[in-house]
Amino acid sequence: MELWFSEVQTKNLSMSVRVKETLYMGKSDFQDIAVVDTYEFGRMLVLDGVFQTSIFDEYIYHEMIAHVPLFTHPDPKKVLVIGGGDGGSIREVVKHSGIKSVEMVEIDGLVVEVSKKFLPEISAALLENNPKVDLKIGDGIGHMTKAENTYDVIIVDCSDPIGPGEGLFTYGFYKDIYKALKPDGLFVQQTESPFYHQPLLQRLNKDIKSLFPITRTYLANIPLYPGGAHSFTIGSKKYDPLEVDLGGAPDLNTRYYNKDLHKSCFYLPNFIKELLK
Amino acid sequence: MELWFSEVQTKNLSMSVRVKETLYMGKSDFQDIAVVDTYEFGRMLVLDGVFQTSIFDEYIYHEMIAHVPLFTHPDPKKVLVIGGGDGGSIREVVKHSGIKSVEMVEIDGLVVEVSKKFLPEISAALLENNPKVDLKIGDGIGHMTKAENTYDVIIVDCSDPIGPGEGLFTYGFYKDIYKALKPDGLFVQQTESPFYHQPLLQRLNKDIKSLFPITRTYLANIPLYPGGAHSFTIGSKKYDPLEVDLGGAPDLNTRYYNKDLHKSCFYLPNFIKELLK
Repeated sequence: MELWFSEVQTKNLSMSVRVKETLYMGKSDFQDIAVVDTYEFGRMLVLDGVFQTSIFDEYIYHEMIAHVPLFTHPDPKKVLVIGGGDGGSIREVVKHSGIKSVEMVEIDGLVVEVSKKFLPEISAALLENNPKVDLKIGDGIGHMTKAENTYDVIIVDCSDPIGPGEGLFTYGFYKDIYKALKPDGLFVQQTESPFYHQPLLQRLNKDIKSLFPITRTYLANIPLYPGGAHSFTIGSKKYDPLEVDLGGAPDLNTRYYNKDLHKSCFYLPNFIKELLK
Repeated sequence: MELWFSEVQTKNLSMSVRVKETLYMGKSDFQDIAVVDTYEFGRMLVLDGVFQTSIFDEYIYHEMIAHVPLFTHPDPKKVLVIGGGDGGSIREVVKHSGIKSVEMVEIDGLVVEVSKKFLPEISAALLENNPKVDLKIGDGIGHMTKAENTYDVIIVDCSDPIGPGEGLFTYGFYKDIYKALKPDGLFVQQTESPFYHQPLLQRLNKDIKSLFPITRTYLANIPLYPGGAHSFTIGSKKYDPLEVDLGGAPDLNTRYYNKDLHKSCFYLPNFIKELLK
Protein backbone atom coordinates (compact mmCIF):
# COMPACT_ATOMS: atom_id res chain seq x y z
CA MET A 1 0.00 0.00 0.00
CA GLU A 2 1.28 3.47 -0.86
CA LEU A 3 0.30 6.52 1.14
CA TRP A 4 0.64 9.87 -0.63
CA PHE A 5 0.23 13.37 0.78
CA SER A 6 -0.75 16.16 -1.60
CA GLU A 7 -0.35 19.90 -1.28
CA VAL A 8 -2.65 22.03 -3.38
CA GLN A 9 -0.09 24.62 -4.49
CA THR A 10 -2.53 26.59 -6.59
CA LYS A 11 -6.08 25.62 -7.40
CA ASN A 12 -4.78 24.05 -10.62
CA LEU A 13 -1.49 22.54 -9.45
CA SER A 14 -0.56 20.09 -6.75
CA MET A 15 2.52 18.28 -5.52
CA SER A 16 2.31 14.84 -3.93
CA VAL A 17 4.89 13.06 -1.84
CA ARG A 18 4.97 9.43 -0.80
CA VAL A 19 4.67 9.12 2.95
CA LYS A 20 6.57 6.77 5.25
CA GLU A 21 4.87 7.79 8.46
CA THR A 22 2.85 10.55 10.07
CA LEU A 23 4.83 11.56 13.16
CA TYR A 24 2.57 14.26 14.55
CA MET A 25 -0.82 15.82 13.95
CA GLY A 26 -2.18 18.55 16.18
CA LYS A 27 -3.93 21.87 16.33
CA SER A 28 -2.73 25.04 18.01
CA ASP A 29 -4.71 28.23 18.64
CA PHE A 30 -3.50 29.38 15.24
CA GLN A 31 -3.29 26.46 12.83
CA ASP A 32 -3.19 22.75 12.07
CA ILE A 33 0.31 21.38 12.58
CA ALA A 34 1.69 18.13 11.17
CA VAL A 35 5.05 16.45 10.83
CA VAL A 36 5.16 13.81 8.12
CA ASP A 37 8.09 11.60 7.21
CA THR A 38 8.34 11.24 3.43
CA TYR A 39 10.56 9.28 1.05
CA GLU A 40 11.60 12.23 -1.09
CA PHE A 41 11.91 15.06 1.41
CA GLY A 42 12.45 13.25 4.71
CA ARG A 43 10.58 14.76 7.65
CA MET A 44 8.42 17.73 6.72
CA LEU A 45 6.62 20.41 8.74
CA VAL A 46 3.13 21.08 7.40
CA LEU A 47 0.97 24.02 8.58
CA ASP A 48 -2.68 24.22 7.50
CA GLY A 49 -1.89 21.69 4.76
CA VAL A 50 0.98 23.76 3.31
CA PHE A 51 4.47 22.24 3.13
CA GLN A 52 6.72 24.55 5.18
CA THR A 53 10.13 22.98 5.38
CA SER A 54 11.79 19.60 4.95
CA ILE A 55 14.99 17.90 6.02
CA PHE A 56 15.88 17.47 2.31
CA ASP A 57 15.99 21.12 1.34
CA GLU A 58 15.48 23.30 4.44
CA TYR A 59 19.08 24.51 4.36
CA ILE A 60 18.45 26.41 1.14
CA TYR A 61 15.67 28.57 2.54
CA HIS A 62 17.34 29.11 5.90
CA GLU A 63 20.79 29.91 4.55
CA MET A 64 19.42 32.29 1.95
CA ILE A 65 17.07 34.18 4.26
CA ALA A 66 19.84 34.61 6.87
CA HIS A 67 23.22 35.02 5.17
CA VAL A 68 22.27 37.34 2.33
CA PRO A 69 21.05 40.13 4.67
CA LEU A 70 23.61 39.40 7.42
CA PHE A 71 26.55 39.61 5.02
CA THR A 72 25.06 42.76 3.49
CA HIS A 73 25.38 44.52 6.86
CA PRO A 74 29.09 45.10 7.67
CA ASP A 75 28.72 44.44 11.39
CA PRO A 76 25.34 43.12 12.55
CA LYS A 77 25.17 42.85 16.34
CA LYS A 78 21.47 42.83 17.18
CA VAL A 79 19.16 40.72 15.09
CA LEU A 80 15.43 40.03 15.23
CA VAL A 81 13.67 37.07 13.65
CA ILE A 82 9.89 37.33 13.26
CA GLY A 83 8.36 33.89 12.90
CA GLY A 84 10.81 31.12 12.09
CA GLY A 85 9.35 28.80 14.72
CA ASP A 86 11.18 25.76 13.33
CA GLY A 87 14.46 27.40 14.38
CA GLY A 88 16.23 27.06 11.02
CA SER A 89 16.85 30.77 10.53
CA ILE A 90 18.20 31.16 14.05
CA ARG A 91 20.56 28.23 13.46
CA GLU A 92 22.05 30.14 10.52
CA VAL A 93 22.07 33.54 12.27
CA VAL A 94 24.22 32.29 15.16
CA LYS A 95 26.90 31.16 12.69
CA HIS A 96 27.85 34.86 12.49
CA SER A 97 30.23 35.18 15.42
CA GLY A 98 29.96 38.99 15.67
CA ILE A 99 26.29 38.86 16.57
CA LYS A 100 25.62 39.67 20.23
CA SER A 101 21.92 38.83 20.47
CA VAL A 102 19.13 37.35 18.41
CA GLU A 103 15.56 37.89 19.48
CA MET A 104 13.00 35.59 17.96
CA VAL A 105 9.28 36.34 18.14
CA GLU A 106 7.14 33.38 17.07
CA ILE A 107 3.39 33.50 17.51
CA ASP A 108 2.83 29.76 17.79
CA GLY A 109 4.63 28.05 20.68
CA LEU A 110 3.43 24.66 19.51
CA VAL A 111 5.38 25.01 16.24
CA VAL A 112 8.52 25.52 18.33
CA GLU A 113 7.77 22.52 20.55
CA VAL A 114 6.94 20.23 17.66
CA SER A 115 10.05 21.32 15.73
CA LYS A 116 12.29 20.72 18.73
CA LYS A 117 10.87 17.23 19.08
CA PHE A 118 10.65 16.07 15.46
CA LEU A 119 13.06 18.31 13.52
CA PRO A 120 16.10 18.58 15.81
CA GLU A 121 18.49 19.21 12.88
CA ILE A 122 16.53 22.37 12.08
CA SER A 123 15.81 23.58 15.61
CA ALA A 124 19.39 22.94 16.79
CA ALA A 125 20.03 26.47 18.10
CA LEU A 126 16.83 26.34 20.16
CA LEU A 127 17.58 22.89 21.56
CA GLU A 128 21.08 23.93 22.59
CA ASN A 129 19.64 26.92 24.49
CA ASN A 130 22.20 29.09 22.72
CA PRO A 131 22.80 32.01 25.17
CA LYS A 132 22.61 34.60 22.39
CA VAL A 133 19.08 33.53 21.48
CA ASP A 134 16.10 35.12 23.22
CA LEU A 135 12.91 33.31 22.18
CA LYS A 136 9.60 35.03 22.82
CA ILE A 137 6.29 33.39 22.09
CA GLY A 138 4.07 36.23 20.97
CA ASP A 139 2.76 38.43 18.22
CA GLY A 140 5.43 39.77 15.86
CA ILE A 141 3.20 42.61 14.70
CA GLY A 142 2.63 43.85 18.25
CA HIS A 143 6.35 43.52 18.98
CA MET A 144 7.19 45.70 16.00
CA THR A 145 4.84 48.51 16.99
CA LYS A 146 6.84 48.97 20.21
CA ALA A 147 10.44 48.62 18.93
CA GLU A 148 12.41 51.69 17.86
CA ASN A 149 15.95 52.22 16.54
CA THR A 150 16.95 48.83 17.95
CA TYR A 151 17.98 46.26 15.34
CA ASP A 152 20.71 45.97 12.73
CA VAL A 153 18.92 43.24 10.79
CA ILE A 154 15.34 41.96 10.92
CA ILE A 155 14.43 38.65 9.28
CA VAL A 156 10.75 38.06 8.57
CA ASP A 157 10.58 34.28 8.26
CA CYS A 158 6.84 33.85 7.91
CA SER A 159 4.42 31.38 6.38
CA ASP A 160 2.03 32.25 3.55
CA PRO A 161 -0.08 35.43 3.72
CA ILE A 162 -3.12 33.52 4.94
CA GLY A 163 -3.78 32.61 8.57
CA PRO A 164 -1.39 33.95 11.25
CA GLY A 165 1.11 35.28 8.67
CA GLU A 166 -1.33 37.67 6.99
CA GLY A 167 -0.46 40.86 8.89
CA LEU A 168 3.23 40.42 8.05
CA PHE A 169 2.57 41.29 4.42
CA THR A 170 1.28 44.85 4.92
CA TYR A 171 2.52 48.41 4.48
CA GLY A 172 1.83 49.17 8.16
CA PHE A 173 4.09 46.32 9.24
CA TYR A 174 6.92 47.57 7.00
CA LYS A 175 6.57 51.05 8.47
CA ASP A 176 7.07 49.56 11.94
CA ILE A 177 10.05 47.59 10.70
CA TYR A 178 11.60 50.78 9.36
CA LYS A 179 11.11 52.42 12.75
CA ALA A 180 12.52 49.41 14.62
CA LEU A 181 15.73 49.34 12.55
CA LYS A 182 18.80 51.41 13.34
CA PRO A 183 19.67 54.21 10.88
CA ASP A 184 21.79 51.79 8.84
CA GLY A 185 19.58 48.72 9.36
CA LEU A 186 18.02 46.40 6.82
CA PHE A 187 15.39 43.68 6.72
CA VAL A 188 14.47 40.70 4.60
CA GLN A 189 11.18 38.90 4.05
CA GLN A 190 10.34 35.75 2.14
CA THR A 191 8.08 37.02 -0.67
CA GLU A 192 6.73 33.77 -2.14
CA SER A 193 6.92 32.44 -5.71
CA PRO A 194 7.82 34.73 -8.61
CA PHE A 195 5.74 32.44 -10.84
CA TYR A 196 2.57 31.90 -8.81
CA HIS A 197 2.30 34.93 -6.50
CA GLN A 198 3.13 37.76 -8.87
CA PRO A 199 0.53 40.31 -7.66
CA LEU A 200 1.70 39.79 -4.06
CA LEU A 201 5.39 40.11 -4.95
CA GLN A 202 4.62 43.22 -6.95
CA ARG A 203 2.64 44.86 -4.12
CA LEU A 204 5.22 44.04 -1.43
CA ASN A 205 7.99 45.36 -3.62
CA LYS A 206 6.12 48.62 -4.13
CA ASP A 207 5.39 48.97 -0.40
CA ILE A 208 9.00 48.31 0.60
CA LYS A 209 10.33 50.63 -2.14
CA SER A 210 8.15 53.45 -0.83
CA LEU A 211 9.87 53.21 2.57
CA PHE A 212 13.44 52.03 1.95
CA PRO A 213 15.97 53.72 -0.37
CA ILE A 214 17.37 50.31 -1.35
CA THR A 215 14.96 47.50 -2.26
CA ARG A 216 16.27 44.30 -3.83
CA THR A 217 14.65 40.98 -4.67
CA TYR A 218 16.61 37.75 -4.91
CA LEU A 219 15.86 34.12 -5.73
CA ALA A 220 16.71 30.65 -4.50
CA ASN A 221 15.88 27.18 -5.84
CA ILE A 222 13.69 25.41 -3.30
CA PRO A 223 12.10 22.18 -4.61
CA LEU A 224 9.54 22.02 -1.81
CA TYR A 225 7.86 25.28 -2.84
CA PRO A 226 5.55 25.87 -5.83
CA GLY A 227 7.53 26.21 -9.04
CA GLY A 228 10.78 25.48 -7.21
CA ALA A 229 11.85 29.14 -7.31
CA HIS A 230 11.35 31.28 -4.23
CA SER A 231 11.80 35.03 -3.80
CA PHE A 232 13.10 37.11 -0.91
CA THR A 233 13.01 40.90 -0.72
CA ILE A 234 15.42 43.14 1.18
CA GLY A 235 14.61 46.67 2.29
CA SER A 236 17.73 48.52 3.38
CA LYS A 237 18.40 52.03 4.73
CA LYS A 238 22.06 52.20 3.74
CA TYR A 239 23.80 49.03 2.60
CA ASP A 240 23.27 47.61 -0.88
CA PRO A 241 23.73 43.82 -1.14
CA LEU A 242 25.10 44.31 -4.66
CA GLU A 243 27.78 46.76 -3.52
CA VAL A 244 29.06 44.92 -0.48
CA ASP A 245 32.68 43.72 -0.47
CA LEU A 246 32.74 40.10 0.72
CA GLY A 247 36.49 39.67 0.33
CA GLY A 248 37.14 39.58 4.06
CA ALA A 249 33.95 37.77 5.10
CA PRO A 250 34.46 34.37 6.70
CA ASP A 251 33.49 31.25 4.77
CA LEU A 252 30.67 29.80 6.83
CA ASN A 253 29.79 26.16 6.71
CA THR A 254 26.93 26.28 4.18
CA ARG A 255 25.48 23.85 1.67
CA TYR A 256 23.83 26.38 -0.68
CA TYR A 257 24.98 29.96 0.05
CA ASN A 258 28.39 31.17 -1.09
CA LYS A 259 29.98 34.52 -1.90
CA ASP A 260 29.35 34.25 -5.64
CA LEU A 261 25.67 33.50 -5.06
CA HIS A 262 25.39 36.47 -2.69
CA LYS A 263 25.35 38.73 -5.72
CA SER A 264 24.27 36.44 -8.55
CA CYS A 265 20.99 35.60 -6.80
CA PHE A 266 19.91 39.22 -7.38
CA TYR A 267 20.27 38.98 -11.17
CA LEU A 268 16.67 38.36 -12.15
CA PRO A 269 15.14 36.95 -15.31
CA ASN A 270 13.51 39.55 -17.57
CA PHE A 271 9.96 38.58 -16.63
CA ILE A 272 10.63 39.34 -12.95
CA LYS A 273 12.52 42.55 -13.71
CA GLU A 274 9.52 43.61 -15.79
CA LEU A 275 7.14 42.73 -12.96
CA LEU A 276 9.06 44.80 -10.42
CA LYS A 277 9.58 47.88 -12.58
CA MET B 1 -15.98 17.35 -12.37
CA GLU B 2 -12.25 18.01 -12.21
CA LEU B 3 -9.80 16.17 -14.42
CA TRP B 4 -6.18 16.04 -13.19
CA PHE B 5 -3.10 14.74 -14.98
CA SER B 6 -0.17 13.54 -12.87
CA GLU B 7 3.45 13.11 -13.75
CA VAL B 8 5.46 10.72 -11.62
CA GLN B 9 8.62 12.83 -11.31
CA THR B 10 10.43 10.35 -9.13
CA LYS B 11 8.99 7.21 -7.60
CA ASN B 12 8.23 9.23 -4.46
CA LEU B 13 7.18 12.57 -5.95
CA SER B 14 4.52 13.61 -8.41
CA MET B 15 3.12 16.80 -9.86
CA SER B 16 -0.51 17.09 -10.92
CA VAL B 17 -2.10 19.68 -13.15
CA ARG B 18 -5.79 20.35 -13.68
CA VAL B 19 -6.76 19.62 -17.26
CA LYS B 20 -9.06 21.62 -19.51
CA GLU B 21 -8.91 19.33 -22.48
CA THR B 22 -6.87 16.60 -24.10
CA LEU B 23 -6.05 17.89 -27.57
CA TYR B 24 -4.09 14.96 -28.93
CA MET B 25 -3.08 11.43 -28.00
CA GLY B 26 -1.07 9.25 -30.33
CA LYS B 27 1.79 6.85 -30.64
CA SER B 28 4.82 7.13 -32.92
CA ASP B 29 7.45 4.48 -33.63
CA PHE B 30 9.34 5.87 -30.67
CA GLN B 31 6.97 7.01 -27.95
CA ASP B 32 3.51 7.96 -26.72
CA ILE B 33 2.73 11.57 -27.60
CA ALA B 34 0.07 13.77 -26.01
CA VAL B 35 -0.89 17.42 -26.02
CA VAL B 36 -2.98 18.44 -23.02
CA ASP B 37 -4.44 21.86 -22.31
CA THR B 38 -4.11 22.68 -18.61
CA TYR B 39 -5.23 25.56 -16.39
CA GLU B 40 -1.81 26.26 -14.86
CA PHE B 41 0.57 25.63 -17.75
CA GLY B 42 -1.62 26.09 -20.80
CA ARG B 43 -1.00 23.57 -23.57
CA MET B 44 1.64 20.97 -22.73
CA LEU B 45 3.57 18.41 -24.76
CA VAL B 46 3.82 15.06 -22.98
CA LEU B 47 6.07 12.19 -24.16
CA ASP B 48 5.77 8.77 -22.55
CA GLY B 49 3.92 10.44 -19.66
CA VAL B 50 6.69 12.99 -18.99
CA PHE B 51 5.88 16.71 -19.18
CA GLN B 52 8.19 18.13 -21.87
CA THR B 53 7.26 21.74 -22.41
CA SER B 54 4.36 24.11 -21.79
CA ILE B 55 3.13 27.41 -23.13
CA PHE B 56 3.47 28.86 -19.62
CA ASP B 57 7.20 28.35 -19.16
CA GLU B 58 8.71 26.97 -22.40
CA TYR B 59 10.56 30.23 -23.08
CA ILE B 60 12.83 29.66 -20.09
CA TYR B 61 14.17 26.33 -21.30
CA HIS B 62 14.44 27.38 -24.93
CA GLU B 63 16.07 30.75 -24.29
CA MET B 64 18.56 29.29 -21.84
CA ILE B 65 19.57 26.31 -23.98
CA ALA B 66 20.06 28.54 -27.03
CA HIS B 67 21.37 31.96 -25.97
CA VAL B 68 23.92 30.95 -23.37
CA PRO B 69 26.01 28.87 -25.84
CA LEU B 70 25.30 31.13 -28.83
CA PHE B 71 26.45 34.28 -27.00
CA THR B 72 29.48 32.38 -25.70
CA HIS B 73 30.69 31.87 -29.28
CA PRO B 74 31.78 35.23 -30.75
CA ASP B 75 30.46 34.51 -34.25
CA PRO B 76 28.38 31.35 -34.65
CA LYS B 77 27.47 30.73 -38.27
CA LYS B 78 26.64 27.04 -38.49
CA VAL B 79 24.50 25.52 -35.78
CA LEU B 80 23.11 22.03 -35.21
CA VAL B 81 20.19 21.14 -32.97
CA ILE B 82 19.83 17.47 -32.01
CA GLY B 83 16.26 16.75 -30.95
CA GLY B 84 14.17 19.81 -30.17
CA GLY B 85 11.21 18.53 -32.21
CA ASP B 86 8.83 21.10 -30.72
CA GLY B 87 10.85 23.81 -32.52
CA GLY B 88 11.40 26.05 -29.49
CA SER B 89 15.19 25.94 -29.60
CA ILE B 90 15.23 26.69 -33.33
CA ARG B 91 12.92 29.66 -32.73
CA GLU B 92 15.53 31.11 -30.36
CA VAL B 93 18.53 30.20 -32.52
CA VAL B 94 17.25 32.14 -35.54
CA LYS B 95 17.06 35.32 -33.41
CA HIS B 96 20.86 35.49 -33.87
CA SER B 97 21.12 37.33 -37.17
CA GLY B 98 24.72 36.26 -37.89
CA ILE B 99 23.76 32.61 -38.16
CA LYS B 100 23.83 31.30 -41.73
CA SER B 101 22.30 27.87 -41.24
CA VAL B 102 20.68 25.74 -38.56
CA GLU B 103 20.37 22.03 -39.10
CA MET B 104 17.93 20.22 -36.88
CA VAL B 105 17.93 16.44 -36.55
CA GLU B 106 14.86 15.12 -34.75
CA ILE B 107 14.22 11.40 -34.59
CA ASP B 108 10.45 11.59 -34.25
CA GLY B 109 8.64 13.29 -37.13
CA LEU B 110 5.33 12.97 -35.33
CA VAL B 111 6.57 15.24 -32.50
CA VAL B 112 7.28 17.90 -35.13
CA GLU B 113 3.87 17.48 -36.78
CA VAL B 114 1.97 17.54 -33.50
CA SER B 115 3.92 20.59 -32.27
CA LYS B 116 3.26 22.49 -35.49
CA LYS B 117 -0.43 21.79 -35.12
CA PHE B 118 -1.00 22.30 -31.39
CA LEU B 119 1.93 24.43 -30.19
CA PRO B 120 2.38 27.02 -32.97
CA GLU B 121 3.91 29.59 -30.60
CA ILE B 122 6.73 27.16 -29.92
CA SER B 123 7.18 25.73 -33.41
CA ALA B 124 7.03 29.17 -35.08
CA ALA B 125 10.36 28.88 -36.93
CA LEU B 126 9.32 25.52 -38.40
CA LEU B 127 5.88 26.78 -39.42
CA GLU B 128 7.36 29.81 -41.16
CA ASN B 129 9.67 27.56 -43.18
CA ASN B 130 12.54 29.82 -42.16
CA PRO B 131 15.06 29.48 -45.05
CA LYS B 132 18.01 29.14 -42.65
CA VAL B 133 16.47 26.06 -41.05
CA ASP B 134 17.16 22.62 -42.46
CA LEU B 135 14.99 20.04 -40.69
CA LYS B 136 15.97 16.39 -41.00
CA ILE B 137 13.89 13.62 -39.53
CA GLY B 138 16.41 11.03 -38.45
CA ASP B 139 18.75 9.67 -35.87
CA GLY B 140 20.94 12.29 -34.16
CA ILE B 141 23.46 9.71 -33.05
CA GLY B 142 23.97 8.44 -36.59
CA HIS B 143 24.21 12.01 -37.87
CA MET B 144 26.99 12.78 -35.40
CA THR B 145 29.10 9.79 -36.37
CA LYS B 146 29.37 11.20 -39.89
CA ALA B 147 29.90 14.92 -39.19
CA GLU B 148 33.42 16.33 -38.89
CA ASN B 149 34.80 19.85 -38.24
CA THR B 150 31.47 21.32 -39.31
CA TYR B 151 29.60 23.20 -36.58
CA ASP B 152 30.27 26.26 -34.44
CA VAL B 153 27.61 25.35 -31.89
CA ILE B 154 25.69 22.12 -31.25
CA ILE B 155 22.59 22.15 -29.05
CA VAL B 156 21.46 18.79 -27.67
CA ASP B 157 17.81 19.44 -26.83
CA CYS B 158 16.78 15.96 -25.81
CA SER B 159 14.19 14.33 -23.58
CA ASP B 160 15.08 12.21 -20.55
CA PRO B 161 17.73 9.49 -20.80
CA ILE B 162 15.12 6.77 -21.23
CA GLY B 163 13.52 5.84 -24.55
CA PRO B 164 14.79 7.51 -27.75
CA GLY B 165 16.98 10.00 -25.83
CA GLU B 166 19.12 7.37 -24.10
CA GLY B 167 22.05 7.29 -26.54
CA LEU B 168 22.44 11.07 -26.26
CA PHE B 169 23.78 10.76 -22.72
CA THR B 170 26.90 8.70 -23.47
CA TYR B 171 30.64 9.22 -23.74
CA GLY B 172 30.64 7.91 -27.32
CA PHE B 173 28.13 10.55 -28.37
CA TYR B 174 30.22 13.34 -26.80
CA LYS B 175 33.30 12.07 -28.67
CA ASP B 176 31.38 12.40 -31.93
CA ILE B 177 30.21 15.87 -30.93
CA TYR B 178 33.81 16.89 -30.32
CA LYS B 179 34.75 15.63 -33.78
CA ALA B 180 31.77 17.36 -35.43
CA LEU B 181 32.64 20.76 -33.92
CA LYS B 182 35.08 23.20 -35.48
CA PRO B 183 38.36 23.78 -33.59
CA ASP B 184 36.74 26.62 -31.63
CA GLY B 185 33.29 25.05 -31.35
CA LEU B 186 31.16 24.35 -28.30
CA PHE B 187 28.06 22.39 -27.39
CA VAL B 188 25.36 22.38 -24.76
CA GLN B 189 23.11 19.65 -23.42
CA GLN B 190 20.23 19.73 -20.99
CA THR B 191 21.50 17.66 -18.06
CA GLU B 192 18.35 17.23 -15.95
CA SER B 193 17.68 18.18 -12.32
CA PRO B 194 20.54 18.96 -9.94
CA PHE B 195 18.30 17.72 -7.11
CA TYR B 196 16.88 14.49 -8.50
CA HIS B 197 19.38 13.29 -11.12
CA GLN B 198 22.66 13.82 -9.34
CA PRO B 199 24.46 10.62 -10.43
CA LEU B 200 23.56 11.37 -14.06
CA LEU B 201 24.70 15.00 -13.85
CA GLN B 202 27.91 13.88 -12.21
CA ARG B 203 28.65 11.24 -14.86
CA LEU B 204 27.88 13.54 -17.81
CA ASN B 205 30.04 16.26 -16.30
CA LYS B 206 32.93 13.83 -15.95
CA ASP B 207 32.52 12.54 -19.51
CA ILE B 208 32.38 16.04 -20.99
CA LYS B 209 35.34 17.22 -18.86
CA SER B 210 37.44 14.35 -20.16
CA LEU B 211 36.96 15.62 -23.74
CA PHE B 212 36.58 19.40 -23.56
CA PRO B 213 39.07 21.80 -21.94
CA ILE B 214 36.18 24.01 -20.74
CA THR B 215 33.17 22.37 -19.06
CA ARG B 216 30.57 24.52 -17.31
CA THR B 217 27.19 23.75 -15.76
CA TYR B 218 24.46 26.36 -15.41
CA LEU B 219 20.94 26.49 -14.00
CA ALA B 220 17.53 27.87 -14.88
CA ASN B 221 14.24 27.96 -12.96
CA ILE B 222 11.71 25.86 -14.83
CA PRO B 223 8.50 25.16 -12.85
CA LEU B 224 7.40 22.32 -15.15
CA TYR B 225 10.44 20.17 -14.32
CA PRO B 226 11.09 18.23 -11.08
CA GLY B 227 12.29 20.51 -8.31
CA GLY B 228 11.90 23.56 -10.55
CA ALA B 229 15.65 23.86 -11.13
CA HIS B 230 17.12 22.50 -14.34
CA SER B 231 20.76 22.11 -15.34
CA PHE B 232 22.55 22.53 -18.65
CA THR B 233 26.16 21.64 -19.35
CA ILE B 234 28.47 23.26 -21.91
CA GLY B 235 31.54 21.57 -23.36
CA SER B 236 33.73 24.09 -25.18
CA LYS B 237 37.02 23.82 -27.08
CA LYS B 238 38.03 27.47 -26.74
CA TYR B 239 35.48 29.98 -25.46
CA ASP B 240 34.57 30.21 -21.80
CA PRO B 241 31.03 31.48 -21.10
CA LEU B 242 32.34 33.18 -17.96
CA GLU B 243 35.02 35.10 -19.86
CA VAL B 244 32.97 36.34 -22.79
CA ASP B 245 32.45 40.09 -23.21
CA LEU B 246 28.78 40.73 -23.90
CA GLY B 247 29.12 44.50 -24.07
CA GLY B 248 28.53 44.65 -27.81
CA ALA B 249 26.02 41.79 -28.05
CA PRO B 250 22.55 42.78 -29.24
CA ASP B 251 19.66 42.74 -26.77
CA LEU B 252 17.41 40.03 -28.12
CA ASN B 253 13.73 39.96 -27.36
CA THR B 254 13.75 37.49 -24.44
CA ARG B 255 11.55 36.94 -21.42
CA TYR B 256 14.08 35.14 -19.20
CA TYR B 257 17.63 35.41 -20.58
CA ASN B 258 19.62 38.61 -20.21
CA LYS B 259 23.30 39.56 -20.13
CA ASP B 260 23.54 39.52 -16.33
CA LEU B 261 22.04 36.03 -16.19
CA HIS B 262 24.47 34.83 -18.86
CA LYS B 263 27.15 34.74 -16.20
CA SER B 264 25.20 34.55 -12.94
CA CYS B 265 23.49 31.30 -14.00
CA PHE B 266 26.90 29.59 -13.74
CA TYR B 267 27.35 30.49 -10.07
CA LEU B 268 26.27 27.26 -8.44
CA PRO B 269 25.15 26.51 -4.89
CA ASN B 270 27.73 24.70 -2.77
CA PHE B 271 26.00 21.32 -2.98
CA ILE B 272 26.23 21.31 -6.79
CA LYS B 273 29.83 22.58 -6.79
CA GLU B 274 30.63 19.75 -4.41
CA LEU B 275 28.86 17.24 -6.66
CA LEU B 276 30.82 18.31 -9.75
CA LYS B 277 34.26 18.47 -8.13
